[in-house]
Amino acid sequence: MAVILGIDPGSQKTGFGIIECVHGRCTYVTSGVIRLPPGALPERLRVIADSVTQLVNDHCPSELAIEQVFMAKSAGSALKLGQARGAAIVPCVTSGMAVGEYSARQIKQSVVGTGAADKRQVQHMVMTLLGLPAAPQEDAADALAAALCHAHTRSSLVSLAGATAVRRRRLR
Amino acid sequence: MAVILGIDPGSQKTGFGIIECVHGRCTYVTSGVIRLPPGALPERLRVIADSVTQLVNDHCPSELAIEQVFMAKSAGSALKLGQARGAAIVPCVTSGMAVGEYSARQIKQSVVGTGAADKRQVQHMVMTLLGLPAAPQEDAADALAAALCHAHTRSSLVSLAGATAVRRRRLR
Repeated sequence: MAVILGIDPGSQKTGFGIIECVHGRCTYVTSGVIRLPPGALPERLRVIADSVTQLVNDHCPSELAIEQVFMAKSAGSALKLGQARGAAIVPCVTSGMAVGEYSARQIKQSVVGTGAADKRQVQHMVMTLLGLPAAPQEDAADALAAALCHAHTRSSLVSLAGATAVRRRRLR
Repeated sequence: MAVILGIDPGSQKTGFGIIECVHGRCTYVTSGVIRLPPGALPERLRVIADSVTQLVNDHCPSELAIEQVFMAKSAGSALKLGQARGAAIVPCVTSGMAVGEYSARQIKQSVVGTGAADKRQVQHMVMTLLGLPAAPQEDAADALAAALCHAHTRSSLVSLAGATAVRRRRLR
């Protein structure tokens, strides 16, 4: 069993979603949005780090899935996003969690089947794949999508490792 | 007495410096550079956060002084710098430290007397102001300069508050 925490960091709000996966079957645990208070940056970073620490303590995830960022609108927004991303990753890595980083395209491909999917398609497919009664909020859906992408990649890697092990045994 | 931690975050190396200030007199405690291992980002952020946590635990600083970043060469370098900055700030704010952010110009003005000072002048003045036998490494000097700038600003604020209090008493 793996408990996977997905995070979609942002400088104004940070989405999160936790799923539990057993033999490739994923079930929903929780999700939501950490809304950052207006005001000084250090306080905003503290809110992100404290909230993620709380999630890690409450649900004991073993792995973090997070979107890789290649581009930002400007150097200013990249700096803000980077700080939020750093604040979200730190409580996970300092508690020993493994981290999987995926491009937006990989995440969309994994949950919707096309890297060009829009936000609403992601929300809809996250709802469908996890059997939720309603579509999660946009940032929470993105976080859950990252977690699902990690679960799919992880389970393919496990199958691949299994297949390689079988092949190796056959070759002996 | 205030123990001030100055940090000069970077995506490849992060400078740090700790000073102790009593009634406006600052003495050197320690300084150095956290060199980040090549490789995956989460591991690099873990090294920053763990090293800063160690400094906080060992020296119990009550305040963090850090350079404000307004510009970066590109969105890519701003994102990397932002992540390193977030990872350095988080252990400080989660342990309740107050944070002072200063522009590069303010820091240079405070330790060299001109906002247009170059790196070597900063190193020289940090060495002189703290009575060190040699100039600290560049990133460590920048971190100590941020701490000194915070100490100077802090002590002006305290004097100002004192002066206001005296004036208020006289007005009564």
